[in-house]
Amino acid sequence: MSHKVALLGFGVVGQGLAEIIETKGNLLSENIGDDIKIVAISDVMKGSVYHPEGLEISEALRVIKETGTLNSYPDTPGLMRGWDSFRTIEESNADTIVEITFTDVKTGQPAINHCREAFRNKKNVVMSNKGPVSLAYQELSQLADENGVRWGFEGTVMSGTPALRMPLVSLTGNEISEIKGILNGTTNYILTKMEDGLSYQDALSQAQSLGYAEADPTSDVQGYDAQYKATILANIVMGVPMKREEVECEGISHLTQDDIAWAKSKNKRWKLIAKCTKKGEKVIAKVGPEAIPLTDPLAGVLGAQNAITYNCDLAGPITLIGPGAGRTETGFSILIDLINIIRKQI
Amino acid sequence: MSHKVALLGFGVVGQGLAEIIETKGNLLSENIGDDIKIVAISDVMKGSVYHPEGLEISEALRVIKETGTLNSYPDTPGLMRGWDSFRTIEESNADTIVEITFTDVKTGQPAINHCREAFRNKKNVVMSNKGPVSLAYQELSQLADENGVRWGFEGTVMSGTPALRMPLVSLTGNEISEIKGILNGTTNYILTKMEDGLSYQDALSQAQSLGYAEADPTSDVQGYDAQYKATILANIVMGVPMKREEVECEGISHLTQDDIAWAKSKNKRWKLIAKCTKKGEKVIAKVGPEAIPLTDPLAGVLGAQNAITYNCDLAGPITLIGPGAGRTETGFSILIDLINIIRKQI
Repeated sequence: MSHKVALLGFGVVGQGLAEIIETKGNLLSENIGDDIKIVAISDVMKGSVYHPEGLEISEALRVIKETGTLNSYPDTPGLMRGWDSFRTIEESNADTIVEITFTDVKTGQPAINHCREAFRNKKNVVMSNKGPVSLAYQELSQLADENGVRWGFEGTVMSGTPALRMPLVSLTGNEISEIKGILNGTTNYILTKMEDGLSYQDALSQAQSLGYAEADPTSDVQGYDAQYKATILANIVMGVPMKREEVECEGISHLTQDDIAWAKSKNKRWKLIAKCTKKGEKVIAKVGPEAIPLTDPLAGVLGAQNAITYNCDLAGPITLIGPGAGRTETGFSILIDLINIIRKQI
Repeated sequence: MSHKVALLGFGVVGQGLAEIIETKGNLLSENIGDDIKIVAISDVMKGSVYHPEGLEISEALRVIKETGTLNSYPDTPGLMRGWDSFRTIEESNADTIVEITFTDVKTGQPAINHCREAFRNKKNVVMSNKGPVSLAYQELSQLADENGVRWGFEGTVMSGTPALRMPLVSLTGNEISEIKGILNGTTNYILTKMEDGLSYQDALSQAQSLGYAEADPTSDVQGYDAQYKATILANIVMGVPMKREEVECEGISHLTQDDIAWAKSKNKRWKLIAKCTKKGEKVIAKVGPEAIPLTDPLAGVLGAQNAITYNCDLAGPITLIGPGAGRTETGFSILIDLINIIRKQI
C-alpha cells in the first residue's frame, strides 16, 4: 500500500523531507509496511505539480535545484499543473497534507485555514509551524477528531528531537508535574558565547553571522519563540488548555557580563528556561532567564542545542537533549508523524 | 475489559508495581481503556495466592508489610493458595506474566524457563532482569513471535527511563550509527565522588553505605553490568545479534586521583562508557572508562544518574538522561510495557 502525501510549500523543510523519502524509501517501506508517495507539491512561488499516481521525487528536486521552479518538471500523462493549495487539499487524492508553507506565526495563516480545509476533506495534516498549534489547538484538534483524521506536529517543539511524542508514548502513566526546557537554540548559543567572555551584542552578531539568529532577532531574544513552545507543551503534554498570552515572558537581552560573573561565582549558569508547572488542574507557564546550578542536566547543554526535563511521579526526572532546528532534523519531524499516522499509533 | 497479570516474585519491584496499580488504577484505565488486574502472586519465599477474578492489592500489600508472607491474605471463595511459578504460568488465567523472581544474571534462570513456559502457554511476559534478554534474546523473541505473544523488558536498560522504547518508537526511520551511554549508576556515583577528591576506595565505600553498590561490587565496577546492557542495546535498538562475550569490557577500579587530575587539565571527565558502533551490518560494542570532553552532554551527568546518546542520521545526536534504578522507577518500567501490550503498540 502507498500512503499519499501532498506538500504545501517546497522550501528548505519540504526539500529536506523529499530527499529523505527519496533516499530512504525502501528502508521505510520495510519498516512501516506502506511506502510514502508524494503525489502533489504546491508552492506559491515555485509552482505546482500533481500526479495521482505519484511524482518522481528526484526530478522535482533536480528541477528546483537547477531552475528554482517546478515549471520544467517533465510532462507525463495525467500530470496536472498550477493547482493552488486549496485545490490540492480538496481535489488531490492525498491521504495527508504536509503543511510547510511560509506561515505567519502571529496569525497562524495560511496554515490554520489549510488545516480546516484538510480536516473537512478527511485528510490528515502534518506540520512543523508553531503558529496553528499554539493559537488554535482546541478548535483544530476537535475538527480533526470529528472527521476521523490525524494532526501531527512533532516538529513544533525541538524539531526532530521527540519532545512531544516521547512523553506521550514512552512516559504515559506518569503524572508530569513540571516541564522545564531550553527550547530556543539562538539564545542558548548567545548565552554560551557570553560565558566565553563575549558581550551580549557581540554574541548576537556572531549568532547572526552563523545563521542561528535572524536579522530581526526579537522573537528569539525576547523569548516569544520559547513562549509559543511552552504553550504547546502545556496543551499537548500536560493536556491543559492554555493561550500564549497566559505564558509570562522575559527575554535575555538585558543580561550583562556582571550577571554571568555572578552566576559563575555561585556555580550556576544562565539559561533561557521555559517552564510549565501543574498545580491541580491548572498549569502555570513562564519563560525567562534563570541561573541554574551546574549539577542540573540542563546546565550542560551548550551552543545551539535544545533540552527538556519532564518531572515524572513514577519515572523520576527524565531529560531529553537534541538539535532544535535543521533541514534534515525538521524533515525527520515530519517523517515521524507520517510513520505514526500510517501505523495508526500516537 | 481487564488485562490480567500474574506476578512471579513479590520483592521490591513487585510491591512497587502493585502500589502503582493500586494508587493509579483509575487514571490508568481512563488512559488505556483497560484496567490492569493482578490475579496471582507467586513468590518462592513469601507464598502464593491466586484468584481468577483478581486479588485485593491493598490486602496483599498489607499482609506482606505486617507479616512478611502472603499466608495471612484473607480467604475468599475461589481463592487458591500455594501454586508455584510454573503452575501459575500454566493454569492461571493471566494474560501477562510479570517475571520479577530473583534471577541469576549469569544463567538467566529461572527467568528463561519461565519465559519459555509462558510463551508456549500463549502468555505475554514482562521483566526487568537483564539476564534472559542478554543471554537468550534470539530464542525467546522467536518463541514469543511464534505464539503470537509479546515480551517486554524496557526496565533492563536504565530502568523506567525509556532507553529502549524511545529510539524504537520516537526515532524510527533513523539509522542509528552509534549508541554511547552511562548505563551503570554505581560507577558514575564513584567517579563523581572521585572528582570531588575522594580516592576510589573511599568513593566505593560511600556508594556501599548509601546502598548504591553491593557488598561485592564486582559486577558494577568491572563493567559487567554495563556489558549486559550494551548487549541488549545491540540486539534491540541496532537489531544485530550479539553475545555478551563479544562486548569488550574494562572496569574503573584502576583509576586514580592522577587520572582524574589529568582529565581535568584537558577539560575532560572520566565516565564508564558503554558504546555500540554500527559498521555495515556488524556492531562493535565495548565498555570501558573514557575521558570525555566537558562539552559532551554525557559529561554533565553526575551522581547515580544514567544517560545515553543515540547518533541518528536524520534527527542528529539525541541524549536521554534519567534514573537508572529505583523501586518506583522499575515498577514504572514494567507498567509501560504492560500499557503498550494492552495498546498493541511497540
